[in-house]
Parts: sequence; C-alpha cells; structure tokens
Amino acid sequence: MLPVRNDNPAFTITRASHVVMSVTDLAKSRDFYRDVVGLVVTEETDNTVYLRGLEEAAHHSLVLEEAPEAKAVAIGLRVRTDDDITAAEKHFADAGIPFQRLERDHQGPTLRFRDPVGTMMELTSSMDVVERKYQSFNEFRAGFPQRIDHYQVATYDVQTATDFWSGLGMRLSEYTTTQDSDDELWGAWLEVKGNTHDLVFANGRGPRLHHFAYAVPDGSCLLHAADVAGALGAGNEIDRGPGRHGLSNALFLYLRDPDQHRVELFNCHYQFIDLEVPPIKWDITDPRRAQLWGMPASKRWFFEASEFPGEEVHEPLLKTTPETLESYLGLH
Amino acid sequence: MLPVRNDNPAFTITRASHVVMSVTDLAKSRDFYRDVVGLVVTEETDNTVYLRGLEEAAHHSLVLEEAPEAKAVAIGLRVRTDDDITAAEKHFADAGIPFQRLERDHQGPTLRFRDPVGTMMELTSSMDVVERKYQSFNEFRAGFPQRIDHYQVATYDVQTATDFWSGLGMRLSEYTTTQDSDDELWGAWLEVKGNTHDLVFANGRGPRLHHFAYAVPDGSCLLHAADVAGALGAGNEIDRGPGRHGLSNALFLYLRDPDQHRVELFNCHYQFIDLEVPPIKWDITDPRRAQLWGMPASKRWFFEASEFPGEEVHEPLLKTTPETLESYLGLH
Amino acid sequence: MLPVRNDNPAFTITRASHVVMSVTDLAKSRDFYRDVVGLVVTEETDNTVYLRGLEEAAHHSLVLEEAPEAKAVAIGLRVRTDDDITAAEKHFADAGIPFQRLERDHQGPTLRFRDPVGTMMELTSSMDVVERKYQSFNEFRAGFPQRIDHYQVATYDVQTATDFWSGLGMRLSEYTTTQDSDDELWGAWLEVKGNTHDLVFANGRGPRLHHFAYAVPDGSCLLHAADVAGALGAGNEIDRGPGRHGLSNALFLYLRDPDQHRVELFNCHYQFIDLEVPPIKWDITDPRRAQLWGMPASKRWFFEASEFPGEEVHEPLLKTTPETLESYLGLH
Amino acid sequence: MLPVRNDNPAFTITRASHVVMSVTDLAKSRDFYRDVVGLVVTEETDNTVYLRGLEEAAHHSLVLEEAPEAKAVAIGLRVRTDDDITAAEKHFADAGIPFQRLERDHQGPTLRFRDPVGTMMELTSSMDVVERKYQSFNEFRAGFPQRIDHYQVATYDVQTATDFWSGLGMRLSEYTTTQDSDDELWGAWLEVKGNTHDLVFANGRGPRLHHFAYAVPDGSCLLHAADVAGALGAGNEIDRGPGRHGLSNALFLYLRDPDQHRVELFNCHYQFIDLEVPPIKWDITDPRRAQLWGMPASKRWFFEASEFPGEEVHEPLLKTTPETLESYLGLH
Repeated sequence: MLPVRNDNPAFTITRASHVVMSVTDLAKSRDFYRDVVGLVVTEETDNTVYLRGLEEAAHHSLVLEEAPEAKAVAIGLRVRTDDDITAAEKHFADAGIPFQRLERDHQGPTLRFRDPVGTMMELTSSMDVVERKYQSFNEFRAGFPQRIDHYQVATYDVQTATDFWSGLGMRLSEYTTTQDSDDELWGAWLEVKGNTHDLVFANGRGPRLHHFAYAVPDGSCLLHAADVAGALGAGNEIDRGPGRHGLSNALFLYLRDPDQHRVELFNCHYQFIDLEVPPIKWDITDPRRAQLWGMPASKRWFFEASEFPGEEVHEPLLKTTPETLESYLGLH
Repeated sequence: MLPVRNDNPAFTITRASHVVMSVTDLAKSRDFYRDVVGLVVTEETDNTVYLRGLEEAAHHSLVLEEAPEAKAVAIGLRVRTDDDITAAEKHFADAGIPFQRLERDHQGPTLRFRDPVGTMMELTSSMDVVERKYQSFNEFRAGFPQRIDHYQVATYDVQTATDFWSGLGMRLSEYTTTQDSDDELWGAWLEVKGNTHDLVFANGRGPRLHHFAYAVPDGSCLLHAADVAGALGAGNEIDRGPGRHGLSNALFLYLRDPDQHRVELFNCHYQFIDLEVPPIKWDITDPRRAQLWGMPASKRWFFEASEFPGEEVHEPLLKTTPETLESYLGLH
Repeated sequence: MLPVRNDNPAFTITRASHVVMSVTDLAKSRDFYRDVVGLVVTEETDNTVYLRGLEEAAHHSLVLEEAPEAKAVAIGLRVRTDDDITAAEKHFADAGIPFQRLERDHQGPTLRFRDPVGTMMELTSSMDVVERKYQSFNEFRAGFPQRIDHYQVATYDVQTATDFWSGLGMRLSEYTTTQDSDDELWGAWLEVKGNTHDLVFANGRGPRLHHFAYAVPDGSCLLHAADVAGALGAGNEIDRGPGRHGLSNALFLYLRDPDQHRVELFNCHYQFIDLEVPPIKWDITDPRRAQLWGMPASKRWFFEASEFPGEEVHEPLLKTTPETLESYLGLH
Repeated sequence: MLPVRNDNPAFTITRASHVVMSVTDLAKSRDFYRDVVGLVVTEETDNTVYLRGLEEAAHHSLVLEEAPEAKAVAIGLRVRTDDDITAAEKHFADAGIPFQRLERDHQGPTLRFRDPVGTMMELTSSMDVVERKYQSFNEFRAGFPQRIDHYQVATYDVQTATDFWSGLGMRLSEYTTTQDSDDELWGAWLEVKGNTHDLVFANGRGPRLHHFAYAVPDGSCLLHAADVAGALGAGNEIDRGPGRHGLSNALFLYLRDPDQHRVELFNCHYQFIDLEVPPIKWDITDPRRAQLWGMPASKRWFFEASEFPGEEVHEPLLKTTPETLESYLGLH
C-alpha cells in the first residue's frame, strides 16, 4: 500500500548525515576508506576514525569504531535545528518509541532510537564545521567521493518501515511491488532532500544495513575507483558494478570493506521536488529495475548485509525474497 | 551587508523552474538548444517552442517565444503548492509590489512580478507532467543536460536584490565583496534547493539576465558539448570555458545562442543544507573566485547579457564594475 | 615455447584491417552496429553492409554479409603495398600454403588463406579512401568507436599459431603459460602496429573468432555505450564488463550482436615499440591476468565464439581449457 | 612544396623518445612535472632528474638538468637498433652533417646532431628497462600521462625542415599552407609511429621548442590536470585549453613549467598508417585548424618557446607569422 506522506511532520529531517560502523581492525578499515574509496580522514582517536567526503563541511559522515564484531552501529540523519531534536524527543515519547539522548563528539544534540522494524537510527542537528576539500584536487584519490547521500536497509517488513518514515515527512520516489499485488511494497525509495533517495528499504532478512552511499562527480570516478581497488588488491571486493540501476538511475559501483560492510559509489540520481510528480512503480519481475545493462550482481550482493548490534534478524514477511529473485535476475 | 534570511517566508519557493526567452528566429534557436545544447523539445506551436532537460518530468524549463527583439522575458521559480501562489499574491499586495496573475499553457497558477531591482520573475506551482528521458540514453545529444539549475542576473544594486530574496527565504551560500569594504556585496549566490545556487546577482549594468544554467552528469559532457558546438559551426559561441569557478566550484562551459542569450552547462556544485555552515566570502580582487584554472573569460562574457523587455538598464551602484575587474582578472 | 620473431618477413603486415561476418538478418545487424556500437555505415547493397569507425579513412573495417548461417567469414589484415600482396603469394606458394586471389569491392589486391590452425585470413594492400568522421562529433553515437584494433581467436594449438605469425613478423607483447610449464603457451598477444595487440590466440575449441575490437577515445564511452545498449534493449548482450584486463591493460566492454558475434569496445592499450622490452608473462592461474577488478566474466564469454565457415572445430591441445579455468577465475 | 618521403631511409626512426630540458631550480621543476603533470620520477642525481610516463618501460622520457639558464637541450628520437645508430653516423658523415657520439646514462649508443634548421636532436637505440606503472592506479596523479608522444618546433624555414625529415622516412600527415600559395608550407605534421605526429614544425622565430607532449588515456584527465594545477597554484600556467585542435584532432591542455617550458597533455590523435591516405591540407586563414571550439590561445602560446643552447634564433622566412595570425585567430 502506498504510504501517506505527512507534509507537516513533528520535526524536520534534512538529509542522510553519517553512519557509524564497528570494525575489527581500525587501521585496515581506515586505509580502505581513505585509499580505496577516497574519503578524507578528519580525525583519529584510539578507537575511532572520523571520515568525510571531499565536499563535506561536516566533521564526519563515516565513523569507524573498533570493536570485536563488525556491525552497523547506527544510521545518522540530520534534523534542521536543535529545536527539531527537542520536538523529536516529544514525538517519540508521545508515540511510545524508546529513545536515548547521547553525547557524541563533534555533534550537536543527538538522539538514538530504533524504528519499528529495528533499524538503529541517530538524529543530530549540527556538527563541527571543518574545511571543505572539494578544491584540494591534488588530494583527490580513488573515487573522488563528495558527500554521503543515502542508505539502503534490508528489512523484514517494508510496509511498516515505509509508513513510519512517511509519517516523519519522507516521500516515496520509486517503489517495487511483488508479483502478487499491485501495491504490495517489496522495496521503497524514500527521500527528504529533493532527489531520489535518502533511505531505502528492501524486502529481506532484516534489519540489516545493505549499504551506505557516497556521490561522485563523474562516471569516470567509478572506473578509477575500480582501478585503484584493483591496484591495491581489493578488486575482488567489488560485488556489483560498474552498472546502471533502472531504479534511481544510479551509475553504481559497490565495494566491500575489510569487514565486508558495503559502500556504494554512484553518480547521477535525479531531482525529485515537484509535488505533482508521482513515484515510479517497478514490478519486481522486471529485471531492468535492478540493472539497465551489464553483468548481474553477485549472490553476495543480494544475500549479505551488516547486522545491527543486539537486534534480532527476522525472516522477511513477503515470500518474494532475494532467493526467489534469482529466477528473475539470472543471478549467479 | 550580509542579508538576514527569513526562515519563515510568506510562501515557499522550491527551485529554479523555467526561463522564458524571446528569440528572433524560432527554428534556428530550437535547433541550437536541441542540437548544440542537447535539450529535449517537448512541444512546438506557431510561435513557441517548449524544451526541457533529459531528467525533467516538468513540461518545460526553457520557453522560446518568437519576437522581433531577443529578450529575457521572465525567470521562473517554482513554489510548493497552489496555496503558495495565493500566499504570494497576498504578500505582494501587502508589500505594495505590483504583480499579475497569468494563464500560461502547461503551468498551474502563475504570477509575474518585478523584484525591486527590476528582474522579471514568474512563479508557478505546478506543470504538466511529461516523460523523464534520463534513461533514453540513445537520444542523448551534445551536453546531456539533465535539468535547469540556476540563473545569474546582472544588477545595479546587489544589496537590494539580496535583501529582497533573503526575505523570501533564500539563503546566501557564497558572496563577493568589494575591495572597499568587508561586507559591501558585489555578488551574491542565493539558494533554496539545498545546493550552491538558484539565483545569483552580480554587480553590473542591469537588470539583465547573464545566463541560465543546466546541470550535466559528467565533466566529459562539457567536452562533448564543445566538440558538438565546433562540429555544428557554433564553436565560436563558447564565450567562456571549459573552466572551473572558484565560486560555487562549477566546472563550466558557456555558450551563446543565435540571439546571443547565454546558457551555461556545468557539473558539480556542492550540497548546502546544514544551517551551521557559514557562507563563503571571496574578495573581488581574488582571481581564483572567477577561475581556478585556465584561460580568462572573454570580454563579452563580462559585458554582454540579455535585457528584460520594457525594463530600463541602470548603471551599477558600486564602482567596482566589470570594467575595473579587467585589471584583476587579466581579461582580454 | 616463446616464438622467434622474423625481423625480415617475406611481406609487411601493418595492422588489423577489417573483419567479414555473415549474419542472418542484415538490417537488424546493421542497426546494432550503427546504433548500439556507434559505427558509421559507409555503404549498403542488397546483401552487404560496410561499416567503419569514426576516424577511419578506409572504406570499411566491418563487412556484414547476409547468409543463412552466422559465421566469421574472414579476418582482414593490411599489408603495406601491392608488392606485399605479390610477395605474400610467392611466400605461400613456396611454403605450400593454399591461397586464393579475390576481387573484393572497395579493396585493392586481396588474398585469402588459412593459417596452420585454420583461421581464415584476408590480406589486402589498400581500400577506397572515404571521409574521416572523427570531427563530426554531432554524429557520434553510443561508444564513439574510432577504429578497428585487434582480433582474438580461440585456437586448439596456440604454439603453432604463434610460431606461424611470428614468422610473418608479428611480435609477442604478452603471453600466458599453463601451470604445467613455464613456457607452454596458453595464450599469445601478437602485435605489428606498435601497441599491445593486433592478433591474439587463446587456447580453446577452435578455430573460432572470439571477438573483434574497436578502440574508443575515453573510458566514459564504455559507460555511454552500455547505457545506450540498455536503452535499446541490448543490455543483456553485454557478456563482460565494463572491466579492466590485467593482460593488455584494456578497459573493456564486450557486446554480442544479434547473431551472437562478439565485439569489444576498449580504451587504452599501451605502446610496444622498443625492442629491448621483453614480453610480459602471466601465469594462467593468476586471476589478475583476466581482470584487475570487478565482476567475473559470464560463462558464455568463455565458451562461445564464432566459427569459420567450412572449418572443423578441434578440441584444444592443452588440458588447461576454459572449463578448468573456472576454478581459477570463479566463473559463474 | 609537399615533401617526398624516403621509403627506404638510411636508418630507422621509430618514435619520439625523450626530451632534455635545462631548468634553473631542479626541485621546483621536478615537483611540477611529478605533481602538476603526473609523471613518474625514475631517478634523481645531484643535477639531473629523470622522469617517465605511467606506461613507459623506458628509463626516461624527460630529463631535467639544472643549469643557469633554462633551455631545450635536445629532442630525442628512438632508432630501432644499435645498427641504426651506426648507419646514422655513416649517413651524417656522407652528408656532411656534424654529429657527436655521446655517453648518456641509461641509454644505449647515442648521437647528437643539429638538423638543417638548427634543431638539436638526440638519437638513441635503447634505454634501461624499468617497471611500467600503468596498473599502479593508486599512484596516478594529475593528468595521468601515459607516454611521450611528439614535439612541436618553431622554425624559420619549415620547408627545409620538412624536406630533411621526410628524407629520413618521416611522413606528412597534415600541413598548413600560407594564403599566398597552395603548397607553401607554413606548418608540417610529420610522423613515423603510425599516428598523427612525432615531430611538428611551424613557421616562427626559431629554432625553438614550442612544446613536448604526453598522451593521456581520457579527456577527463585534462580536466583533472587543470584542477590539480589550480589547486597547486599553477592554474595561470595553463596558456591554452582545454580545447580541440582541428589539426591532429588533439583534445589538448598546455601548461608552462616553472621556467616557462611548455608541456602538452592531450588525448586522441588518430591512426595514420595506410599509404593511400593523403595528408590533410589546412589553409592558414582557417581558424578551425587551430581550434574547433573554445577560447582562443593566449598570445604567449603563440610567441613564447624554449631556445636551444648556443643556437641563434632566426626570423621566419614566411611573412605569415604568428603576429599576422592574430587577425585570423582573434588572438588576445
């Protein structure tokens, strides 16, 4: 069922902001994101590395925390002002949603909460401002990643997730439906910043973070990132792409980090602002939704994702699972 | 003086929407924008051609109207809903700003008004929805222009223009100051859609439309657009670029159409959403603001622009004019 | 065993020149090579279409002939002058190699012969000169293919093939050896025009033409070609790439035509002129020889190729066949 | 007058090989070529730095020698074997052309001589073989220069230069004629390696080295090189481009080093092998020969070049000088 977007949400989310990942070897992961992806290291402490995209004035968009197990710790969204944090607290309290106020270095007021399908989220209203590096071209490396853009989450209940986030003002830009019903949501592309997606949910064992994505300025950046990955011995860590998604139109490259967390580099989604434009519907059996051209994804792209700490993974509610997609997509 | 942005404006502007240009030879201008720029022709009537970028679902972002004189007829902005049009009418009536309600084909409710420095503006809340062509790659031509992005206006009074539009919710992302004062505005980059600019004012004889700009997906698109211009005999109509602006970070190419209206193709401005990030200040004597590298602009890029019909052009208030810029920029 | 190159061959081969392919639906194949690959149609007759790359002054580099069965009819090489054709006749007569003098439209004196492993070759010394289209940028389509570059042939006896062509002056630039022996040739990259390859032989069921290749000016051309293939419904006809070979350093995209002939678009092989530079040796078990990064090839890339008419296909002499490569390469 | 090419020259030249430049600040020049251009430093001694392109197996293609004055010391060409050096000695002795046998580190047998218009040349038959870095993508910087490609020399007597080098086997691919005569050579593009040019002569004060050129794999490399130049404060050292020459079809960027020696980065010349294809003639008054699109060159591009040590600079024989080109080209 298509969600009803709340045009006047309790607080204002503005964009995907930062992701916190635990990793088992901090130096190795830092090297990967700096040298193979091309992110800028803002700061390092004993057990944490903060990184950001080349154009980002925010202190970090990726936080690596050393831990015994590799997990997706939290997915961060920005809200407009400190008042939005207060409003969010009130809203969650009223709605009976547990939340936690945190002190996070380099961030303004910060809340953590789980959405109804168990996705661990972190809201913050500001960050320390650091130098934008978008004109330090001599320091550009690998994929030239400019900024964090969106997240994709595997979830056992896409409908519930979509309804929840639409209630907080997110808007559906594209969606997939199962073969059984015209409006049974298999996947939902939700946005808040005026282009294709900030937060995506796809049917599968979940909650698990499928990937976080950085925007690059140029298609050729994906080729150079892949070349650099190859030169640094990480060529096999590409588990999909380069290719073009039908959904969202992204020209993509997916890489696995040393703990097998997945990061996407992509170019070119489109603007989605005007209210009269309806979301795009794709049938799950249409292979073009997943790829307009090129080699099919690897199995691991479909089946592997990062779990959230302490969160049970559920089997998906819909019977059209990645496993059954195999017949549609010619996976191998 | 830095403007004070109104966070709660009378109505909600969402983006640069469409520009209306009068041209003296409709077929010739259509051919230019279709073949040399790469826009899609949505519809043609006897005296009007409607064009759009490859990703645009809106009926048009460029309207060419045949007329005896080539002018910039109006610069269009989108507002969120029909209610915003009503609110704009009320606001302008209260403020004593003349406006006119128009019927425009393929547009929802539409207002025209002049801002305090004489820029002819057109607000509309919706358009007919047409097919996005962003995946019709076989039809891509020249610069692969995806969507209209922003306007630059030469104005005799940048401060007044900036104050007016900030009062309507636009936010300053970058600005230039004169050598005489730290906060005497020579140029103002204003945005509403979350990246560098939707509307730019620069000191000069005005009001005149300096250019309107389309975003391209890739730096290589600028090279191909220039090559196609060369092949079609329009190579000399490039009056600046390819080059990189310090201001806004745009990788740009500027082309003149058959009536010498100027259109920009560019890649890669940056996201500008977070409220804690201050605008970037540039000194007018810093040549890097205009170009990080490469050949200086031609004189005509600095001195020529499209007038608005029936609007007197005033000499600029600030003495640092394009003419005096010559010494800073090594123009020739 | 590494071949001994004849520095003073009986006649002078200068480059890969043209390939003749029979196809079952002439119009469909013409459309594919023109619209999905981007070749220029030089001329069409009732049962033949002549095409060329954008920079080619030669009348054709691809000849499509309508026939009941799709085959690789002949692989063309250029020799320097008419005298080289005469010298070739004499050489083949002396060596007991059957050959045939042909009249071919738009070609100078032409010979056909089979090399010792059954590859059907065509030598010619000149062609009708036509317009180079490399500056007709407005007519560029899909992959912007500039010129034919090289061929890859699946053969049952790489050693014999390599020895034969080295005797005619071709030079080994790179090669693969089997795991059983340091100099048992599994694949041989042979060149005559001063860069990586004009003619490649790889162990497999043969003789069969694995692919013919066109050079493109830019990596982004491969992405655009893939996008255009997707838009025109040929996205699934990509059976490998985009990717980067370790061998030859080619950034590649492989497409199958409507009869499943394979054409490669690639960028960037390297210069190979200086005599003191030894050929590069790769071990067949090193997966980097086939791909520095990215998704493995499809099975069909390894197992399917175009047969030559009337030529029996033999099982390969070496036991390291594509089938056994599967374990090295993670094929699927 | 069009030159007559000697098809059977006294010795075999194979390609542009290396250029020796004296510079006044060795460290500064090394940094420029490594960081702004992207060359690899092979070796440094007290007063010499050896650099090469990313794909080059030869020890060096650029030699920087510290000296009180910045000069073009010598332009290097490769010959096929040591026997060609011996043959060259004999040829020059017979022809009464003075030459000198040199010991040059990392080079095989080496000759220096002046051609009849005073261009200081260096022939060598081999170099130390070093690692090709074309797959060390993580080390790629700035323009990703792959290999040295060609030289352009300003000369006072194009006809004499062209006749001399044609006599040594170089072939004319393109040429410009003056407005006074159909075959009075103003510029001559000469090649030996099978594409557009190895050695170019253009009418002007000479002999002076106008530029030496490196090939890049991709148009986007020129944009990145320009960006890096801008970031490193060398943006103003671009004295032409990016742009597209009509002549040779090069997509080019010209940079001046700290001593104002000029280096070109370019993509995409075309193959020129077949003997039946005539050279392309351009009229000097056709501005498209110099640029298909974009901003005209700076004056300094036309008037500045590097002198050879000890060689008098002569005024050009033809009256169509760069100065008079100004009217054709709209220089400024």
